[in-house]
Amino acid sequence: MISFENDYSAGAHPRIIQRLTETNMEPLSGYGTDVYCQNARRKIREATECPEAIVEFLVGGTQTNAVVIASMLQSYEGVVAAETGHVSVHEAGAIENTGHKVLTLPQHQGKIDAGELKTYLETFFEDGNHEHMVFPGMVYVSWPTEYGTLYSKAELEAIAEVCHAYEMPLYLDGARLGYGLMSPEADMTLPDIARICDVFYIGGTKVGALCGEAVVFPKGNAPKHFMTRIKQQGALLAKGRLLGIQFDELFTGNLYLNISRNAIEMAEQLKRLLHDKNYTFYLESPTNQQFVIMENEKLEELKKHVAVSFWEKADDTHTVVRLATGWSTTVQDMEELGEWL
Amino acid sequence: MISFENDYSAGAHPRIIQRLTETNMEPLSGYGTDVYCQNARRKIREATECPEAIVEFLVGGTQTNAVVIASMLQSYEGVVAAETGHVSVHEAGAIENTGHKVLTLPQHQGKIDAGELKTYLETFFEDGNHEHMVFPGMVYVSWPTEYGTLYSKAELEAIAEVCHAYEMPLYLDGARLGYGLMSPEADMTLPDIARICDVFYIGGTKVGALCGEAVVFPKGNAPKHFMTRIKQQGALLAKGRLLGIQFDELFTGNLYLNISRNAIEMAEQLKRLLHDKNYTFYLESPTNQQFVIMENEKLEELKKHVAVSFWEKADDTHTVVRLATGWSTTVQDMEELGEWL
Amino acid sequence: MISFENDYSAGAHPRIIQRLTETNMEPLSGYGTDVYCQNARRKIREATECPEAIVEFLVGGTQTNAVVIASMLQSYEGVVAAETGHVSVHEAGAIENTGHKVLTLPQHQGKIDAGELKTYLETFFEDGNHEHMVFPGMVYVSWPTEYGTLYSKAELEAIAEVCHAYEMPLYLDGARLGYGLMSPEADMTLPDIARICDVFYIGGTKVGALCGEAVVFPKGNAPKHFMTRIKQQGALLAKGRLLGIQFDELFTGNLYLNISRNAIEMAEQLKRLLHDKNYTFYLESPTNQQFVIMENEKLEELKKHVAVSFWEKADDTHTVVRLATGWSTTVQDMEELGEWL
Amino acid sequence: MISFENDYSAGAHPRIIQRLTETNMEPLSGYGTDVYCQNARRKIREATECPEAIVEFLVGGTQTNAVVIASMLQSYEGVVAAETGHVSVHEAGAIENTGHKVLTLPQHQGKIDAGELKTYLETFFEDGNHEHMVFPGMVYVSWPTEYGTLYSKAELEAIAEVCHAYEMPLYLDGARLGYGLMSPEADMTLPDIARICDVFYIGGTKVGALCGEAVVFPKGNAPKHFMTRIKQQGALLAKGRLLGIQFDELFTGNLYLNISRNAIEMAEQLKRLLHDKNYTFYLESPTNQQFVIMENEKLEELKKHVAVSFWEKADDTHTVVRLATGWSTTVQDMEELGEWL
Repeated sequence: MISFENDYSAGAHPRIIQRLTETNMEPLSGYGTDVYCQNARRKIREATECPEAIVEFLVGGTQTNAVVIASMLQSYEGVVAAETGHVSVHEAGAIENTGHKVLTLPQHQGKIDAGELKTYLETFFEDGNHEHMVFPGMVYVSWPTEYGTLYSKAELEAIAEVCHAYEMPLYLDGARLGYGLMSPEADMTLPDIARICDVFYIGGTKVGALCGEAVVFPKGNAPKHFMTRIKQQGALLAKGRLLGIQFDELFTGNLYLNISRNAIEMAEQLKRLLHDKNYTFYLESPTNQQFVIMENEKLEELKKHVAVSFWEKADDTHTVVRLATGWSTTVQDMEELGEWL
Repeated sequence: MISFENDYSAGAHPRIIQRLTETNMEPLSGYGTDVYCQNARRKIREATECPEAIVEFLVGGTQTNAVVIASMLQSYEGVVAAETGHVSVHEAGAIENTGHKVLTLPQHQGKIDAGELKTYLETFFEDGNHEHMVFPGMVYVSWPTEYGTLYSKAELEAIAEVCHAYEMPLYLDGARLGYGLMSPEADMTLPDIARICDVFYIGGTKVGALCGEAVVFPKGNAPKHFMTRIKQQGALLAKGRLLGIQFDELFTGNLYLNISRNAIEMAEQLKRLLHDKNYTFYLESPTNQQFVIMENEKLEELKKHVAVSFWEKADDTHTVVRLATGWSTTVQDMEELGEWL
Repeated sequence: MISFENDYSAGAHPRIIQRLTETNMEPLSGYGTDVYCQNARRKIREATECPEAIVEFLVGGTQTNAVVIASMLQSYEGVVAAETGHVSVHEAGAIENTGHKVLTLPQHQGKIDAGELKTYLETFFEDGNHEHMVFPGMVYVSWPTEYGTLYSKAELEAIAEVCHAYEMPLYLDGARLGYGLMSPEADMTLPDIARICDVFYIGGTKVGALCGEAVVFPKGNAPKHFMTRIKQQGALLAKGRLLGIQFDELFTGNLYLNISRNAIEMAEQLKRLLHDKNYTFYLESPTNQQFVIMENEKLEELKKHVAVSFWEKADDTHTVVRLATGWSTTVQDMEELGEWL
Repeated sequence: MISFENDYSAGAHPRIIQRLTETNMEPLSGYGTDVYCQNARRKIREATECPEAIVEFLVGGTQTNAVVIASMLQSYEGVVAAETGHVSVHEAGAIENTGHKVLTLPQHQGKIDAGELKTYLETFFEDGNHEHMVFPGMVYVSWPTEYGTLYSKAELEAIAEVCHAYEMPLYLDGARLGYGLMSPEADMTLPDIARICDVFYIGGTKVGALCGEAVVFPKGNAPKHFMTRIKQQGALLAKGRLLGIQFDELFTGNLYLNISRNAIEMAEQLKRLLHDKNYTFYLESPTNQQFVIMENEKLEELKKHVAVSFWEKADDTHTVVRLATGWSTTVQDMEELGEWL
């Protein structure tokens, strides 16, 4: 059985496991104050070219979104996101649980549009009743999006420009950031993202770590007492080393980008394979997730050998299926998949 | 200057003021335990034909929505509402402030559709990821809606049937309930509403009271310790008499329906007047709110003499304007309006 | 039956009822934008000698505490209060419901001590683990306290000094402010309180209004978009006139202080009467609430004729009873009480 | 440099690291549905002798407390805890952040007393105003407590009896559960705890895991849709394997108890050593934490060689210091410590 079900079905990159093993018996201080967290922070400041950046490590994506968004909004503000944004749909109301509304904009292959954002904001502030409404307080984008698509640098800069005209921070959810950066379609580097956004996170869980996301405030603009806010939301790890060691290793010798590149190379092979086999694409993305329409019978057969992900019903006899590559996908996985498709 | 701006610009019906005056120096127990609250509860149980009903008095509409919804949902649940529902748009995030998401359905002149509700629920529970999503926990409708439109009895029963198939309560926001009941288009009585819904409120603020909404749990199905929940949300009035006396009077000698009828009669005159003057309707409602499209120049002139409500921009030279009648609108108001239109 | 049960058992001062009657049919704009709210704000700015003050009207005390405290705290902060403070004990967790902890200090006849506050703050910030604790973010006092006692000007200034050394606002709950100001023991005026505190409210519900509390930010230091915060917490009244008219009248011709003085004069008579009858005081307060210890048999007899308030059990045969005077207590009430005691 | 600073300064037990390494490349399903989570659940059901138990894995202690408490309380309820309970003091208000008050009882070496609990509950429900107060909704104890002390079986059963008389669940925080179970003073087994409590957690972070706590509902009494509640609070790990593998290993061949026993044996040596060196105990506990009073000069010297934990100031020249052993403390650590003390 091989798996193209998602990008978090394997454990961690072997180098991470090795470092956890090597450092295991060292006594280290807790709560993110250890030397590995310090090293990881330094390396991320270098990789983002943001010497002033504040970097904190959290455990998972939904947690990170909730902590960051709740920490940066005023109580009367909500977060603007695509109607298909992860925070809008698939976080069980974690944002609303912190008291904030997710204000949705139309999605275009998972992306919001700077023009539509501007129109929304203009209309909001023109409305004589806007003091009875939730104020837009920050903008959330994901890169890659939930559909694997990417904002171009121009698109993201246009969104940032609108945000800053309205004095709202722009937050980028980088759960799969590495896969975006290594996409042939990407025209942004990590320093570009750090320059354009006000806060973002570098996803570990889906890019080679056992767990962990690195939140970056590129201009040192973390909310006051951010550590206490993290603690208050139950997100502070006693053994912060678990996160520090992983990110220290991911940012040593370019590991993060190298393993991301593997996922993209495998995804390119995957797309060729699907085309060769004449599958109809529901969405052909530039990153590690591909969406095709399969006959239900064919799908049932395939699932005996290959784990894939149900996305949605296409019609009574067809299903939209997601196949994801990842840092751990191998050429051999691809060959086996080719046989079963 | 006459006002068609809204239905809460006057004070209270003179009979209410008179009762407040007459009872003013009586020493009464606090927090809704006084005899007037008791009387009002009894009269509402009679008027709704629900001898088991639990009735509590709250101060305003947004407060009532927040208290009722937060008290009836589990933490992982949200409330389903039309995308134009008052809770969705115009309550400054009061629902999200209690930790719950407002899950929106398309609106059709302010109403949701039972079929679309059913499809949404079916799809939700079929989705393999629904445990990562906010569960629909109750359905919110307003009657009349924010656009002054009305669900027919058949429409509301169809929605209730879907709700109950999914074991969700149906909640009806009756901020303008009287204006609905007295509409020539209405095919429901107060007992009908009490029979079909699981909880609803009888609006006072917009129907002749200084303030106050009466929440009704027709089957005695109030959440446990509802009074403490009210207190916890800052919604318990020390001088509960202020609410009890008003509702006692409103439900004496049919006052509530009689003054509602006046608003509807005036609205019927208003519609005729607007037709006579050849205004284009944006939405001609069966209740007390009418929406017409006006030339901006004409509107500026009119506003010197008549208070009306900006609804939204129609185009560069036209505006959608709302005119509302109410319990206090007089024939003389209508005549004056006729002159200025 | 006469009532010394509390200070909110009667309706409103007759002049308020009269003004509500006179203004009743005037069409007024909603949500606190009407001319009576404006007048009341102006008069309160004059009475507090704070030309820059921002004044907003809310409906009740618990609501006011929750809105003010939640609006002024950061998410990682709590409010410091006496262990017997109203926010600590008798608001059904309204503060915690907004996500904030009430941090308690020992009480001395209902008051906190500036020295103990200082020690607490010093210890807190010295503690190496304080980033894992709730930060003290503001200080809450009530004046008069729940026991009817009063801070002297020196005591309140000492507390304010500590607050400001730690950059925390000082908030004064003035549910019974008038009764404090008119106490023979009071050495503070309304302008003194406005000068010493960062935010406070002038209580209406217990001092002659049907409902209503006026929140004052003396230095114009209201939280941003305070109106939206009020709305979000379900505390914004559509007919803001109900509050504006009442406070406009209370601050016309010194009515607020005059009726407060009546309560205090009656309380002085009450104390003499209780002494004459040889009752043992549990707490003899300088304001309108007096606490005496009664034999249970005597109490049962008394309650047939006079409503009083159970405070707590003293021992198996005795009870601590609270008797409260108010703006509406009459000389005749006192005479009748004298007969029954 | 050796460390007696706390029980989470080392990584994980080597067998855990080994299992993480061995299983690392297996593709596994996410969110706690993998085979290792299943195995760990089964083994915990066996170890607790609760075949009906529902077992879920969370990441850390504060998170676990917040998720469990918020999931089990009604909105108008709070959790009863010792004034020194971890939830009361050292979780940055994580409980209040979920909207619930922590209701405190006096502590006796970190423990609450069943009699005092009963008196508190009796008094609460007798109080005529209790509907204006936070209802006690569950009881929180920790075992061992924050001071390393232990409830005896009789003490815990007495507390449980009071809880159940008031229909409140009893929740036991077992962050250091293993160290309690292996204490010579303990008269309870894991099945005893599972029988007496309504919910508890088996701490991993401080007992040999990298992270992780296993929540156990012994009677299958988990709140409805508990997984969604976990997700909503940002506490659901995508790679649930990280927790499952660790607990699977901890509950294989008695590892959890064996490594806990080591901590206790080392603690017994530690106590002898401290006595031999004539240190004054602030609190001599039966588990892995010992508290002694040291001269500040001596402490400064010691800290050059041994990491210990500041607990609190004793007086101007003395400090209360905590020394903790753990699963990883070695005989060699003890010998070195002996030299420096």
